[in-house]
Amino acid sequence: MQNLYPEITAQIYNELKDDLHHGKPADYIPELANINQHQLGIAIATADGKIYSAGQANVPFSIQSISKVFALTLAFQRMEKALWLRVRKEPSGNAFNSLVQLEYEKGIPRNPFINAGAIVITDVLCSRFVQPEFSVLQLVRKLAQNSEIDYNMKVAKSELLHAHRNLSIAHLIKSFGNLENDPSQVVKTYCTHCAIQMSCIDMAKAGLYLANHGCIPATKEYIIDDDSTKRLNAIMLTCGAYDAAGDLAYRIGWPLKTGVGGGILAIVPNMLSVCVWSPGLDELGNSYSGIRALEKLRLYTNLSVF
Amino acid sequence: MQNLYPEITAQIYNELKDDLHHGKPADYIPELANINQHQLGIAIATADGKIYSAGQANVPFSIQSISKVFALTLAFQRMEKALWLRVRKEPSGNAFNSLVQLEYEKGIPRNPFINAGAIVITDVLCSRFVQPEFSVLQLVRKLAQNSEIDYNMKVAKSELLHAHRNLSIAHLIKSFGNLENDPSQVVKTYCTHCAIQMSCIDMAKAGLYLANHGCIPATKEYIIDDDSTKRLNAIMLTCGAYDAAGDLAYRIGWPLKTGVGGGILAIVPNMLSVCVWSPGLDELGNSYSGIRALEKLRLYTNLSVF
Amino acid sequence: MQNLYPEITAQIYNELKDDLHHGKPADYIPELANINQHQLGIAIATADGKIYSAGQANVPFSIQSISKVFALTLAFQRMEKALWLRVRKEPSGNAFNSLVQLEYEKGIPRNPFINAGAIVITDVLCSRFVQPEFSVLQLVRKLAQNSEIDYNMKVAKSELLHAHRNLSIAHLIKSFGNLENDPSQVVKTYCTHCAIQMSCIDMAKAGLYLANHGCIPATKEYIIDDDSTKRLNAIMLTCGAYDAAGDLAYRIGWPLKTGVGGGILAIVPNMLSVCVWSPGLDELGNSYSGIRALEKLRLYTNLSVF
Amino acid sequence: MQNLYPEITAQIYNELKDDLHHGKPADYIPELANINQHQLGIAIATADGKIYSAGQANVPFSIQSISKVFALTLAFQRMEKALWLRVRKEPSGNAFNSLVQLEYEKGIPRNPFINAGAIVITDVLCSRFVQPEFSVLQLVRKLAQNSEIDYNMKVAKSELLHAHRNLSIAHLIKSFGNLENDPSQVVKTYCTHCAIQMSCIDMAKAGLYLANHGCIPATKEYIIDDDSTKRLNAIMLTCGAYDAAGDLAYRIGWPLKTGVGGGILAIVPNMLSVCVWSPGLDELGNSYSGIRALEKLRLYTNLSVF
Repeated sequence: MQNLYPEITAQIYNELKDDLHHGKPADYIPELANINQHQLGIAIATADGKIYSAGQANVPFSIQSISKVFALTLAFQRMEKALWLRVRKEPSGNAFNSLVQLEYEKGIPRNPFINAGAIVITDVLCSRFVQPEFSVLQLVRKLAQNSEIDYNMKVAKSELLHAHRNLSIAHLIKSFGNLENDPSQVVKTYCTHCAIQMSCIDMAKAGLYLANHGCIPATKEYIIDDDSTKRLNAIMLTCGAYDAAGDLAYRIGWPLKTGVGGGILAIVPNMLSVCVWSPGLDELGNSYSGIRALEKLRLYTNLSVF
Repeated sequence: MQNLYPEITAQIYNELKDDLHHGKPADYIPELANINQHQLGIAIATADGKIYSAGQANVPFSIQSISKVFALTLAFQRMEKALWLRVRKEPSGNAFNSLVQLEYEKGIPRNPFINAGAIVITDVLCSRFVQPEFSVLQLVRKLAQNSEIDYNMKVAKSELLHAHRNLSIAHLIKSFGNLENDPSQVVKTYCTHCAIQMSCIDMAKAGLYLANHGCIPATKEYIIDDDSTKRLNAIMLTCGAYDAAGDLAYRIGWPLKTGVGGGILAIVPNMLSVCVWSPGLDELGNSYSGIRALEKLRLYTNLSVF
Repeated sequence: MQNLYPEITAQIYNELKDDLHHGKPADYIPELANINQHQLGIAIATADGKIYSAGQANVPFSIQSISKVFALTLAFQRMEKALWLRVRKEPSGNAFNSLVQLEYEKGIPRNPFINAGAIVITDVLCSRFVQPEFSVLQLVRKLAQNSEIDYNMKVAKSELLHAHRNLSIAHLIKSFGNLENDPSQVVKTYCTHCAIQMSCIDMAKAGLYLANHGCIPATKEYIIDDDSTKRLNAIMLTCGAYDAAGDLAYRIGWPLKTGVGGGILAIVPNMLSVCVWSPGLDELGNSYSGIRALEKLRLYTNLSVF
Repeated sequence: MQNLYPEITAQIYNELKDDLHHGKPADYIPELANINQHQLGIAIATADGKIYSAGQANVPFSIQSISKVFALTLAFQRMEKALWLRVRKEPSGNAFNSLVQLEYEKGIPRNPFINAGAIVITDVLCSRFVQPEFSVLQLVRKLAQNSEIDYNMKVAKSELLHAHRNLSIAHLIKSFGNLENDPSQVVKTYCTHCAIQMSCIDMAKAGLYLANHGCIPATKEYIIDDDSTKRLNAIMLTCGAYDAAGDLAYRIGWPLKTGVGGGILAIVPNMLSVCVWSPGLDELGNSYSGIRALEKLRLYTNLSVF
């Protein structure tokens, strides 16, 4: 199978490259809105250290909500069970930034991948690291084995200027007693780790531990244990795509996490990690062409968890 | 691995059999409330036709919502894509019988495994079969290769007497134009197929097609195709346990469907089908000891989709 | 003041009669949809037995939700305080037929003037009268001193055919144990008393007891006592116009009740009862021109409760 | 009638003074929680300049949400109609500080007397006054003709420390574009004008313009015009008591505004202004004994708007 990956990635890129006008980039900050939508990157990383890529797989993009996977991994390393007293792990069944559920459920977010949950996770990091946003950055540098990965501070600052909804969420959580740190500080940290920039190749490599029992293949370092890795994949499958999680589980069937920058990190357990990126978003905030690329990849490889 | 199943099922039963007082049986109808809670059945079916069981695996129980899997399978056979115009496949993020979401979402239920969705699926069957409840029964008889499986009409009638919430749901869906048949008739059919009684052994055998690409191993008959089977498993994983779907994906990691009779059907794709049953329900309406049994089974077999 | 009423009613009619194209008639049943929208009736009744009217004040219209006032009056006569255990008296703050609040509030409707509340009130009447819909009719005949007032059975039957939302509400209330009678029977009774037809003159006369301490001036009969009358007026002011109650209290300042037939009954306590009717409804379901007529009447008479 | 007020106020105080243990003071900040609950003040102000009082009518209390009446009056002076593009005037039908409705209704608060609405009103003042909190203070000093009325800065600071829910509301409104100023600044101003302290006598005098066509009787100064006064009274009647507005309209029937400090300002249009104060709050956040005192006052005076 594996030696077909070069052909498959090339084929998918060729099938989609002239059809990238669907959806539109996130428009709430200028840095994301002004991107050239007609880009598509695909990168597959396998446990033996190989990378198979096509299209704009070397172009850095804003990882946005995909950073929630790495923030959760850091929190997981420090407090697995206690974490679930502060955030649940249920699909949200609502738009990704809704305050309604958060109010009814007394400040306990539905899962770590909606904004409210990621804010609580970031609060956990703020209480445990001197520079929590830098700890997230260090983790992805180590995972991707690329020390040049960095934040885009222009994106981070621009997001902070438009962070009133996240500030609303953070203050509401604080009012229920579920935030240890200052809401402004937590939201600032959150916006910063969302502003990390990585290429598809970086991201596919960074996600490989999730397809490999928690272990970075190149260094044999365990980031989290096998059992925690399975659980993290479960959360990605049930909660990784906002209100499209069920639909993508149905259409693709892999644990994945999307971001409004247009990136998607997907995992085939025990097999491979894949990152696709294309900036045009569908109406649910997920990359339109990225999802199509993953559907094709699933079809051509016939890999599924089900 | 497989030859350890007799020991594993026996061990799980022995570890739990004196600890079955947790939770309590469903109490909304006398037929379910009056059951002896101190029962636990476990049955594993594998593709080679073997059954491994322990405890009260031969005792028939009311399958209740597990019947939604078979109803959906029948609907799937007749109208795959068009089905998703009438019901979505997203986790509900709410209690299993909530009308709130249904009203906000204009009569389109979140997924086929909440009551609203199963009522729409039953409506699909009512439009396509002369005796739709009998068609569901025939399907499970064929799957389990047991022609003695039947409804418990006392349970069905008792449920109809307490069906005001389901009638409310059905009339609301009708008011949005998403029900073809008379709401009373659809709810009656729904209550009837929920009242099918099966043992763990019957159910494990009945579910085997979901672990075998849609094919009944004993007869080589394809019930649905491989691709549809994967998709049905995906819906079971993301939506099969009401508001505990995310938690059970995290703790167990298998597609499954629970019922308020205390049964759970779970699938390990390409490997096996398992049914556990114990009447005591947790506060979310799932079998307390059934979930514990599945957790142990996952631990002892180390099987996971992730 | 009073002797200006003939001029005022005529002036209001003249100012509005060529501008009745705003809004549109209720369209959910043919009998209401097919009405000529270019009609406006105004009738004022005063305690001394005088009637001042203009426009189509003699044309019978479907009173629809205005019947809730008379149903509540009948229920009031029989069980004042106990009534408020089954229905509250708070504004609903939502669309007039929402099930959301009803579910969150466990089957206790917000007030007697939303559909859910009127269904509970009708249930009260069903438990206390052999022919409850006829009891409502008898009451309005007595109040208006017109024995020819009757239901429009065509409207009643047509509404029953489109009553799925009301049936959904009734079954939901029943599921919470707050309905004594069969939901279908209660909804049928409800649809029937909503289908009473009256002219503006009939209605203005019928409402006069609310402006006269609960007493019919012509016969000196007390329908309800002075204190209950004040309370009923309070409910009309805070809950009488669906989600426009606050706005109409602000713009007009009188207790009133609207119906989707285009009628509005308004009360100036101790002074007069007024009925306006024009079929075109605004987006909140209240008569567009009826409201304008009342605004003008308030301006020209300078009468206000505030 | 009027010369009975001394006896009536004394009688009400005597009937209630040994029964003030019902409910409990607001406990979210120490300054409100530590108050002696066994206090009750009553003060009636009439247009001829007379004051009738009983009990602790001279003790200053924290006016809290009653300040919303004066903030709205100031906003009214500057922008009557345009105001209603930014805040509605409908009862909320929910708890007084809910974010749910605010999110569904896109940042447009239901009315100026829930926290969200008062924050928008305060934002209006922040855009129009250099020291908006001082403008509110100046207004109440002028209305009560008492230049010694002041904020309790300890209360204001303490509220700011516990203002996360209000900050959440303000940021949410800002995210919808309905706040002109910085959310932190608006909330600070809001907490400050809520921390004004007044006695029942001060407050009854301050409210007299609402019973007198908008005019201060002593100085003949019009604060707002007659029509606006009627409208403000309408909002007080429909929205002045959080989720008890309908119930209090039913039981008392006067425009009123309650505060969590235990004060209630009530208006009998064209007759009098009354302030009652007792710190014990019922479960809806309104003064338990204050409401009882108003019920008795309504009974003994037989004054009603209905």
